Amino acid sequence: MTDKTPTSTGLRGMSAGSTALCTVGQSGSGLTYRGYDIHDLAEHARFEEVAYLLFKGKLPNQKELDAYVARLKSLRGLPASLKAVLEQIPADAHPMDVMRTGASMLGNLETEEGFAEQQDKSDRMLAAFPSIINYWYRFSHDGVRIDTETDDDSVGGHFLHLLHGKPASELHARVMNVSLILYAEHEFNASTFTARVCASTLSDIHSCVTGAIGSLRGPLHGGANEAAMAMIEDWQTPEEAERELLGMLERKEKVMGFGHAIYRESDPRNAIIKQWSKRLADDVGDTRLYPVSERVEAVMWREKKLFCNADFFHASAYHFMGIPTKLFTPIFVCSRLTGWCAHVFEQRENNRIIRPSADYVGPEKQEWLPVEQRQ
Amino acid sequence: MTDKTPTSTGLRGMSAGSTALCTVGQSGSGLTYRGYDIHDLAEHARFEEVAYLLFKGKLPNQKELDAYVARLKSLRGLPASLKAVLEQIPADAHPMDVMRTGASMLGNLETEEGFAEQQDKSDRMLAAFPSIINYWYRFSHDGVRIDTETDDDSVGGHFLHLLHGKPASELHARVMNVSLILYAEHEFNASTFTARVCASTLSDIHSCVTGAIGSLRGPLHGGANEAAMAMIEDWQTPEEAERELLGMLERKEKVMGFGHAIYRESDPRNAIIKQWSKRLADDVGDTRLYPVSERVEAVMWREKKLFCNADFFHASAYHFMGIPTKLFTPIFVCSRLTGWCAHVFEQRENNRIIRPSADYVGPEKQEWLPVEQRQ
Repeated sequence: MTDKTPTSTGLRGMSAGSTALCTVGQSGSGLTYRGYDIHDLAEHARFEEVAYLLFKGKLPNQKELDAYVARLKSLRGLPASLKAVLEQIPADAHPMDVMRTGASMLGNLETEEGFAEQQDKSDRMLAAFPSIINYWYRFSHDGVRIDTETDDDSVGGHFLHLLHGKPASELHARVMNVSLILYAEHEFNASTFTARVCASTLSDIHSCVTGAIGSLRGPLHGGANEAAMAMIEDWQTPEEAERELLGMLERKEKVMGFGHAIYRESDPRNAIIKQWSKRLADDVGDTRLYPVSERVEAVMWREKKLFCNADFFHASAYHFMGIPTKLFTPIFVCSRLTGWCAHVFEQRENNRIIRPSADYVGPEKQEWLPVEQRQ
Repeated sequence: MTDKTPTSTGLRGMSAGSTALCTVGQSGSGLTYRGYDIHDLAEHARFEEVAYLLFKGKLPNQKELDAYVARLKSLRGLPASLKAVLEQIPADAHPMDVMRTGASMLGNLETEEGFAEQQDKSDRMLAAFPSIINYWYRFSHDGVRIDTETDDDSVGGHFLHLLHGKPASELHARVMNVSLILYAEHEFNASTFTARVCASTLSDIHSCVTGAIGSLRGPLHGGANEAAMAMIEDWQTPEEAERELLGMLERKEKVMGFGHAIYRESDPRNAIIKQWSKRLADDVGDTRLYPVSERVEAVMWREKKLFCNADFFHASAYHFMGIPTKLFTPIFVCSRLTGWCAHVFEQRENNRIIRPSADYVGPEKQEWLPVEQRQ
């Protein structure tokens, strides 16, 4: 095909709607959620507070926040049928397939019967998604049936607690909190746009989220931090990293975790997660992965003028917290779920079915030929 | 919100890519699949032949068709884990949630490991989807574990056989064949566009199809034949139908199964399925549902100049074949799956991630305020 139509541009730069949720890359850099700068949110906010902001349009006061945190805490248990389904999924399944199936199954058991239930269903998914992925992971990998109801105060702490079988340290819970905030929302990225297209048919919110998970699974979208980890984990020294990386660049291999479709000079999320990766490196006494990561960053800038995006230092940060690489993208799901649901709410508020046209590039009218006469 | 951006137009009339698969409504009416007129296909083709045409770009010769039919026949069995999952889904679940979950679970068990497998995975879904929905339906409603491997020659015959526990009559298999052809493909409708957005992240084909099922579930998209059935099933006579319908129009209630986003004068699929509905009505000796349907069609045209779309006479046709109303949209899935997969192939051939922009209509920069200072 040789068309120059939107197939080849991916609707880049074309407006497909309006949103009050997020600005990405205004004047080339910043990121805001409902007007709040990502630096302020990552420095001061709790992830639950950011979820509230995205869903309801304002930051909660103390009483509202306490009630919201308590509510999420109460929604972590999984129905027996959902656990039975997760137990049927083998250990070598793709964890994003597990998340997609878990979300879809939850929709069978706790169906959204009308849009008045959208906030309840979103809260439930926010609380239950860490339970879903960790229940499957621990059952299929360790052979244990974990209790998914913990007393942790945060979504991030709950996640780590289930994964490791013990409460997270204060530092780890803090980093998870920051990470979940950084990934929460990013305008009309492909998974969010998937959720909005689905929402535009007035389908239920589990369908929207299930579809979005499927899109986030794609290597051009959600898998970059896993790919970055796979790249750096074998390099023992910064010197080896530089040598290998230069070889990759010479062979024109794709280096994941760098550059961005919209940001042009830097990804504002990088400096934030990088600083936390450093803290974790110091905490665990790492002398390899962090220096390797820093060298990769320097070489990519020197050679290609490409900057780290949100994903690159997430790889080392997650690794330092003992998170298996295959669970990186499911954590992205646990975070971005908030943005997806907020966009579904917004789409429903002012809906028209999203049904674009296509340019036809196929054959002209064909004459029917009976099967026995065909070559 | 008061924007006049694409949110309020749903990208209507905007090209979001190119396709060689289908034309809809060129010169206001026709429908072609790869250049073949829908009338020719519905009159002469087998659904398996149409699937082959959509997937491979040409009609099969006799040997190819025989091999393809035999291949689909061999792929009807379900893995034990998938059956175990379906048995966990309650009888009152939404059947489209069942289809979505079944497709997603199949992706865990038979993951597409690379695009070289896309044709195999599509064939497998085409053969297995009737098994999935009927296995769940018969287990949850009748308490039986059916054997999903039958010797039927067609997808439609297989579907009816599983549902009714006996081979379909020649007439019923023929009508199912026509119905599956009519619903197979329809350009960039919302579910197909969902599949393409997902495919554009280079995600796997089960994710694309799972997302598309979620979008087809929406009442603005796939549910119209079920809604039409719900409307007409209580009306005993054409006179009662006319009276009730006029009341609905006066109350400005939405009448499902009429009009179309793209067709302006008629839906070419209507005349075809209407004729088969009539044949079935004569076959079962119906003196109520078909005359009621005809009256509704006449009144809608007289009062509103609205024509039946593909869905309206599908309602009575399916009903005459003993298909429960709740399975109408899952049959749509079993058919449209072919279009979805063909679009995924096409998207992958010439891909760029589909990532539009949005117009920001939210608040300007907000100052962070600590939680204890908030109202």
